[in-house]
Amino acid sequence: MDRERLRALLERVQREELDLDEALEQLAQLPFVDTPHARVDTHRALRQGLPEVVYGQGKPPELIAEVVRAQQNAGLDVLVTRVDVEVAEAVLRRAPGGAHDAQARLLWYGPRETPVVGKGLVLVVSAGTSDLPVAAEASAVARRFGNRVELLADVGVAGIHRLLASSAQLRQARVLIVVAGMEGALPSVVGGLVDKPVVAVPTSVGYGASFGGLAALLGMLTSCASNVCVVNIDNGFGAAHVATLINRL
Amino acid sequence: MDRERLRALLERVQREELDLDEALEQLAQLPFVDTPHARVDTHRALRQGLPEVVYGQGKPPELIAEVVRAQQNAGLDVLVTRVDVEVAEAVLRRAPGGAHDAQARLLWYGPRETPVVGKGLVLVVSAGTSDLPVAAEASAVARRFGNRVELLADVGVAGIHRLLASSAQLRQARVLIVVAGMEGALPSVVGGLVDKPVVAVPTSVGYGASFGGLAALLGMLTSCASNVCVVNIDNGFGAAHVATLINRL
Amino acid sequence: MDRERLRALLERVQREELDLDEALEQLAQLPFVDTPHARVDTHRALRQGLPEVVYGQGKPPELIAEVVRAQQNAGLDVLVTRVDVEVAEAVLRRAPGGAHDAQARLLWYGPRETPVVGKGLVLVVSAGTSDLPVAAEASAVARRFGNRVELLADVGVAGIHRLLASSAQLRQARVLIVVAGMEGALPSVVGGLVDKPVVAVPTSVGYGASFGGLAALLGMLTSCASNVCVVNIDNGFGAAHVATLINRL
Amino acid sequence: MDRERLRALLERVQREELDLDEALEQLAQLPFVDTPHARVDTHRALRQGLPEVVYGQGKPPELIAEVVRAQQNAGLDVLVTRVDVEVAEAVLRRAPGGAHDAQARLLWYGPRETPVVGKGLVLVVSAGTSDLPVAAEASAVARRFGNRVELLADVGVAGIHRLLASSAQLRQARVLIVVAGMEGALPSVVGGLVDKPVVAVPTSVGYGASFGGLAALLGMLTSCASNVCVVNIDNGFGAAHVATLINRL
Amino acid sequence: MDRERLRALLERVQREELDLDEALEQLAQLPFVDTPHARVDTHRALRQGLPEVVYGQGKPPELIAEVVRAQQNAGLDVLVTRVDVEVAEAVLRRAPGGAHDAQARLLWYGPRETPVVGKGLVLVVSAGTSDLPVAAEASAVARRFGNRVELLADVGVAGIHRLLASSAQLRQARVLIVVAGMEGALPSVVGGLVDKPVVAVPTSVGYGASFGGLAALLGMLTSCASNVCVVNIDNGFGAAHVATLINRL
Amino acid sequence: MDRERLRALLERVQREELDLDEALEQLAQLPFVDTPHARVDTHRALRQGLPEVVYGQGKPPELIAEVVRAQQNAGLDVLVTRVDVEVAEAVLRRAPGGAHDAQARLLWYGPRETPVVGKGLVLVVSAGTSDLPVAAEASAVARRFGNRVELLADVGVAGIHRLLASSAQLRQARVLIVVAGMEGALPSVVGGLVDKPVVAVPTSVGYGASFGGLAALLGMLTSCASNVCVVNIDNGFGAAHVATLINRL
Amino acid sequence: MDRERLRALLERVQREELDLDEALEQLAQLPFVDTPHARVDTHRALRQGLPEVVYGQGKPPELIAEVVRAQQNAGLDVLVTRVDVEVAEAVLRRAPGGAHDAQARLLWYGPRETPVVGKGLVLVVSAGTSDLPVAAEASAVARRFGNRVELLADVGVAGIHRLLASSAQLRQARVLIVVAGMEGALPSVVGGLVDKPVVAVPTSVGYGASFGGLAALLGMLTSCASNVCVVNIDNGFGAAHVATLINRL
Amino acid sequence: MDRERLRALLERVQREELDLDEALEQLAQLPFVDTPHARVDTHRALRQGLPEVVYGQGKPPELIAEVVRAQQNAGLDVLVTRVDVEVAEAVLRRAPGGAHDAQARLLWYGPRETPVVGKGLVLVVSAGTSDLPVAAEASAVARRFGNRVELLADVGVAGIHRLLASSAQLRQARVLIVVAGMEGALPSVVGGLVDKPVVAVPTSVGYGASFGGLAALLGMLTSCASNVCVVNIDNGFGAAHVATLINRL
Repeated sequence: MDRERLRALLERVQREELDLDEALEQLAQLPFVDTPHARVDTHRALRQGLPEVVYGQGKPPELIAEVVRAQQNAGLDVLVTRVDVEVAEAVLRRAPGGAHDAQARLLWYGPRETPVVGKGLVLVVSAGTSDLPVAAEASAVARRFGNRVELLADVGVAGIHRLLASSAQLRQARVLIVVAGMEGALPSVVGGLVDKPVVAVPTSVGYGASFGGLAALLGMLTSCASNVCVVNIDNGFGAAHVATLINRL
Repeated sequence: MDRERLRALLERVQREELDLDEALEQLAQLPFVDTPHARVDTHRALRQGLPEVVYGQGKPPELIAEVVRAQQNAGLDVLVTRVDVEVAEAVLRRAPGGAHDAQARLLWYGPRETPVVGKGLVLVVSAGTSDLPVAAEASAVARRFGNRVELLADVGVAGIHRLLASSAQLRQARVLIVVAGMEGALPSVVGGLVDKPVVAVPTSVGYGASFGGLAALLGMLTSCASNVCVVNIDNGFGAAHVATLINRL
Repeated sequence: MDRERLRALLERVQREELDLDEALEQLAQLPFVDTPHARVDTHRALRQGLPEVVYGQGKPPELIAEVVRAQQNAGLDVLVTRVDVEVAEAVLRRAPGGAHDAQARLLWYGPRETPVVGKGLVLVVSAGTSDLPVAAEASAVARRFGNRVELLADVGVAGIHRLLASSAQLRQARVLIVVAGMEGALPSVVGGLVDKPVVAVPTSVGYGASFGGLAALLGMLTSCASNVCVVNIDNGFGAAHVATLINRL
Repeated sequence: MDRERLRALLERVQREELDLDEALEQLAQLPFVDTPHARVDTHRALRQGLPEVVYGQGKPPELIAEVVRAQQNAGLDVLVTRVDVEVAEAVLRRAPGGAHDAQARLLWYGPRETPVVGKGLVLVVSAGTSDLPVAAEASAVARRFGNRVELLADVGVAGIHRLLASSAQLRQARVLIVVAGMEGALPSVVGGLVDKPVVAVPTSVGYGASFGGLAALLGMLTSCASNVCVVNIDNGFGAAHVATLINRL
Repeated sequence: MDRERLRALLERVQREELDLDEALEQLAQLPFVDTPHARVDTHRALRQGLPEVVYGQGKPPELIAEVVRAQQNAGLDVLVTRVDVEVAEAVLRRAPGGAHDAQARLLWYGPRETPVVGKGLVLVVSAGTSDLPVAAEASAVARRFGNRVELLADVGVAGIHRLLASSAQLRQARVLIVVAGMEGALPSVVGGLVDKPVVAVPTSVGYGASFGGLAALLGMLTSCASNVCVVNIDNGFGAAHVATLINRL
Repeated sequence: MDRERLRALLERVQREELDLDEALEQLAQLPFVDTPHARVDTHRALRQGLPEVVYGQGKPPELIAEVVRAQQNAGLDVLVTRVDVEVAEAVLRRAPGGAHDAQARLLWYGPRETPVVGKGLVLVVSAGTSDLPVAAEASAVARRFGNRVELLADVGVAGIHRLLASSAQLRQARVLIVVAGMEGALPSVVGGLVDKPVVAVPTSVGYGASFGGLAALLGMLTSCASNVCVVNIDNGFGAAHVATLINRL
Repeated sequence: MDRERLRALLERVQREELDLDEALEQLAQLPFVDTPHARVDTHRALRQGLPEVVYGQGKPPELIAEVVRAQQNAGLDVLVTRVDVEVAEAVLRRAPGGAHDAQARLLWYGPRETPVVGKGLVLVVSAGTSDLPVAAEASAVARRFGNRVELLADVGVAGIHRLLASSAQLRQARVLIVVAGMEGALPSVVGGLVDKPVVAVPTSVGYGASFGGLAALLGMLTSCASNVCVVNIDNGFGAAHVATLINRL
Repeated sequence: MDRERLRALLERVQREELDLDEALEQLAQLPFVDTPHARVDTHRALRQGLPEVVYGQGKPPELIAEVVRAQQNAGLDVLVTRVDVEVAEAVLRRAPGGAHDAQARLLWYGPRETPVVGKGLVLVVSAGTSDLPVAAEASAVARRFGNRVELLADVGVAGIHRLLASSAQLRQARVLIVVAGMEGALPSVVGGLVDKPVVAVPTSVGYGASFGGLAALLGMLTSCASNVCVVNIDNGFGAAHVATLINRL
């Protein structure tokens, strides 16, 4: 579309409908890709064939509902992340029709099933019970973004055989998302078992010297498995986004 | 190969050439994938069709040269990372025949050209002149790992037009490695311009409040572009490894 | 005024109305600029032709209202910062007549419009929706301090075209305040686009590795754009104060 | 110049010398402000009427000399920062004609005197003897950037009368740069004495709990004087740049 | 008292009332100074002629009241620190007769006035309004510990003249306690104005880069005034204890 | 058990009941020690002859009760750690029959008394009153894990004689758990008095520069007594587990 | 011995050879366990039946040699830790007769073989080649302290099968010392495979976000395996000391 | 002296030798205490009857020698701190006549013996051999500042009896300086044994988790003995200064 606008402008110059100085000014202002009044995230998402995403944490339900309704009016799907139960219910009262995934803290306005366009399996692996909300966010977002997803939960490194028992499943994945708190060692072990890219998500699970996820974060960044890359603490959404882009290649 | 050893063992049981208790003991010891006396990294690498890699930093040249010669004797390629000029020369005296890339601090023992097996372009983007060694490591490793690689250097965010002028090149990449020190903002900007996975590498370039790369690292982890994942500070090698695995999908 | 007091004292010495030893003692005690019982902030503000400012956070409404009424009785304007809705309402009940800006968390007791004495445009630029309260504080304070102010919101670096589309507006500013959380990259990009001083405000927006605004703060301090200076996390008021002083030059 | 290139392109379209599709491609690639092969910093500096600046730290003398000679060939001035005595001498052997300021660690290739274009006095205030190199960098850069500069040294807060004795000089400044290590308290005191913008520079001077300048940095960011903004630790150059832009308003 | 117990034991050995082995065992167990079942803090305090002190934070009112009543039954005074209003009231219901100082968060069970035994003036100096609770704790404890105490409040370094106006008062002090949050610069300035020991108390007042008092703490530790020593963040009690011991010398 | 499964598989191969390829696949999947669907912690605990342990913090009472009932149905004991009073009561309503230790924050479902299998005394030493909950957790867990346990409380290093008076008790211990907050110095002193292993537990007790237990943690890690090893902040359970394993040797 | 001194003193009191006041004074001064002029560490070690240990780092060779010769003159063994090759050689020149272990950085003056008094196997497990010096220190010290020791090297978690292949060896150990740098995940995995106490040693191996061993340290402290306790970074000696005490139980 | 200057000025006003406006200007500029061109530290020291002190670290020997000679010319004593052997020798060549204390890293230009003016004993207590340089600095400075000083070395808390054996010496002190690295526990123990003020000096001795003295610093700040105050890491000089001022009371 932007290329069209650019072409139109150049044609008007060619047809001498547009003065050179004026064209100059317009070109200096013209965004290459975006339209002036659109919200950036929407358009970045649209370019990538993904639904709009609203980061819900700390936003009042009224604001979230307003964005949701605007998207719906435009005929677009929208995914809201990081909504607690109370917020979700308040949004649903104002903008009915969404599906609420309480564990993953997501609200989804769109078709019940997203068609699978990712080429292979996205496997989400999580270490402990307490990491499940982040793993659930990663799984649910990856599904909504058009991937086939499996979840392998509760396979922390202190009971390594349980993970090894699933090594066939590990090897079937095209991309892996590994979620762990505390010492965050799981991505290193998983990374050594597969020859696929591993997106590691540290969680804020733990206490004391875990310092809100810092221990897991540093552990993943210094992983001795070099096929591991890392996203922010508790950022299941970001991991799913990266994995989606990889899985579409 | 390991599967072959396993099959051979089972056949000996089947042929009753091997006592059950002895087989039991051997199986308990037998690595599924590895051979007993080999180094883990080698075999992981071999499984992935990649050359052996030796992390050179802090290792004495004698040790590096020994590993290199062992690999050569086995008819295998080997890549040595993080070698300063003095170390590189000392290794080359002991194990001749390697190619030395001084900027990337690499030694390569193998064919002059690696066949390209990655499916698309790996684009390495770097922010400032001082980030070049890390960008060079990422580029050279990605090339040795069988990727077509381009380097887009010196496009820091404080001169954003220079980056935008290369937006066509950005869009041609299948995977991007973005290298930046100081505030580490480049991956956020690049991540917003492309719909491909971005592997971000913070560098220790900077002074004062950069705290040895911490500022860049935190900046990349909290990037507002959610298609960005991060590796350790100065870890050009790790970024190239992740990008290689992605580019082979 | 203080100079007057000093002159008076010296004249009394000259007229021998004041004993030398007594004068000596008075001079040792005499503040150069301040009067003994006045509150420092008030007088510093008065010297600069600015209204009194009360930092409201953590102060009980009774105390705030008391200060406000004292100022009003003295015929002076007063601005209260960092007041939540509940505190604002409690203050207004005790000290009616103030204007409440809920988003900026400000209470203003003074004329509806402040005359513009700043010489040019103060442009407040903010990255994301969640940074708006801090940007609003900066904008509103800058207005109350006598500047022409514009707000350019929602132009995060992950959608760089949106910012570039406003480059004319950026170039019209005499001073810029740039507000951003998460990786805090916006001041670097803006700083590269203008040749004016940029006052950067990191916000505590973000989670995980943002560590309460630390990531943004370090990013701004290590900015590769050298026309950027930084104030404390979430300190929209301080940025407005600095920008006001610059804009009066 | 860039506007000229843009105009030329548009004129070729108007004269139908250039095909629409080709123009489209060229425009997509064309930087708005920059030329394709130029280094960003140069051009940003040029736009602002300032000499080119090369950050010398960690760069080999050969590289610095090469950049210097390129600038000289283009008839441009160049300032090199952060060069130790050895590096400075090595650069001067390769690129003669520069003036070396050992205390400020600067090399200057340009006219002996820079014409003063800044409107008022830039006053550089420093706390202790050990802060002098950073204060000297700030002073010398501010002079080379066309400001009238005075240096008020050795006025640490533990001997407050010495600072107060210079209060007339403080009040004459249009912009102040305040340099301090250890607890970094000087900008707070100076900020309370003037009604002008104060650019604070923490230094890495100190030991133990100064943690390489962190104590001073945090102290300046949390200053109780709200007319203070802060640049990176030891960043005398950045402070001079910000002060220059303010002083030209 | 303990020496008495020791003497009694030795006398019983001398009088052969006590078997050697039994004496041996008793001596091995006998605390030099303490009695076996007494609480350590009590006795340390008693040795120093100070009332018992109970640190109240986080302790349930029942427990505090129990300790208070036990002290009262033993005819001893007791001071409870860090009690919020609710806790204070709950303790007073269970252990009536105490005096509650709400600002200093103290409960005092003892005589209305403590006789002054300290030799000179303990001057408590505080920077801002928000530092008052800590300054009040230091003042009240120092008074209960038998010192003549004055409080000089609201003399932050950003309005330095106000502090200087009180320089006579500063010079009258025998020991000074200086309380400040944010950048914590006040002890450096005060330390330069007096030739007496200065006990600095950082407070957790501030936001953002004050990091809960860390900025003030580091600032005080790296003070350029070398007659300053530091206690823990918000530790008004500790400062009063140290000042008391100094003032009794 | 697993060895049995392995033997059974090999016997089926030997009897040619199992095809080689199928055996190969099963072996690749077969865990050495664990059964595929079991929860890791349970089995690790069972192997060690210890009851199942559920970490209760942050878990909803429904989930805890479910796990408890499952264990009870399987005829197994279960210990729940880190349960506040409200949670404990909610769990007990859903899963009656447990013993609640409020100070130690434990729920225990099992026999009233655990038989002592540890060979000697586990002595738990704690510094201050506020460290008691962690010391109580360590004591109670060590008891439930079959140790004879004594608790020596309130022997902080600022009243060293009280600790020395208990030196006979210290010397009777086979393993010591030392619990301390604030500066965490107690393990160093205790470690110097005994020739037995000391497991140190830092607690989050303290304020200001204790930074949530960091001061105590660092102090214990850098202890000048080299018979000290450390567990996570507030981790009374972990200390009891380590001490139990030592005491069974 | 000290008990003997105490008995002698009491007997002199009983025999009235010693005045009561003088006895009182002597008792007040008398150490329970130590002799007045002896060095503490020596005596602590002697009490535990271990050789004297000198921490060599940062000590001049002259000082080390002096202590060694003093020990030798007293007929005692002595172990010197943390000596680089140059220091070791300088000490050996001054105090001949020691055995130098270059990898473990130890000097040993004593019998060639230490008799084994530990009851079982101390197994030292290390992750990577670069961790070997610390593992070697732990192994050699444990041997000198009278343990049977085995070293299982190069079994990092990214190649988990290699570790599992050694699970029989793991299960034979009575105590395990696990040494790892980078993410420090190895103790968690080992801890899950054994039911014995695991002493974890983080190393400073790594770069960037390993922050000198902090990542490994935090990872080990937050280990999900609760039979793990931790010593200081690179503290192979301390781990060996703790393991020795455990192995003697 | 300054008071004299002030009196002279007032007398000239009284005698009408000085115009009112001129007097006004002079008074505005006049330092109360200081002379315009003198260095602050000198005069602060002089006011306190102490010799001039030059902090030598990082200063070139030429500069130090220059200051020394200036002091000598003025007939004043001078103490130089933090000078390594090489620097000391270089200074002595340029400014002969100083006494060099290599362990304390001090140079002293003044009388061989300083008269004792402090009222009691300053006792310096140090934990380990490696803390001796800092303890030596504290001792030597306290002596030069006119105190009777004793040093009690090598009494770390892991051998607590050695410290207790010196308890009589501890009780004789009027002020105590306690120097310790690693976990920094010694001030807590000493603080509990005496009823005098304790000035604690953390040292940078240690490795790993001591983080350059941070562990000791935090430990001392959170000391459970409330008669402890703290100076910067390795700041033996500052501790001696504070102790001197206390000991003169």
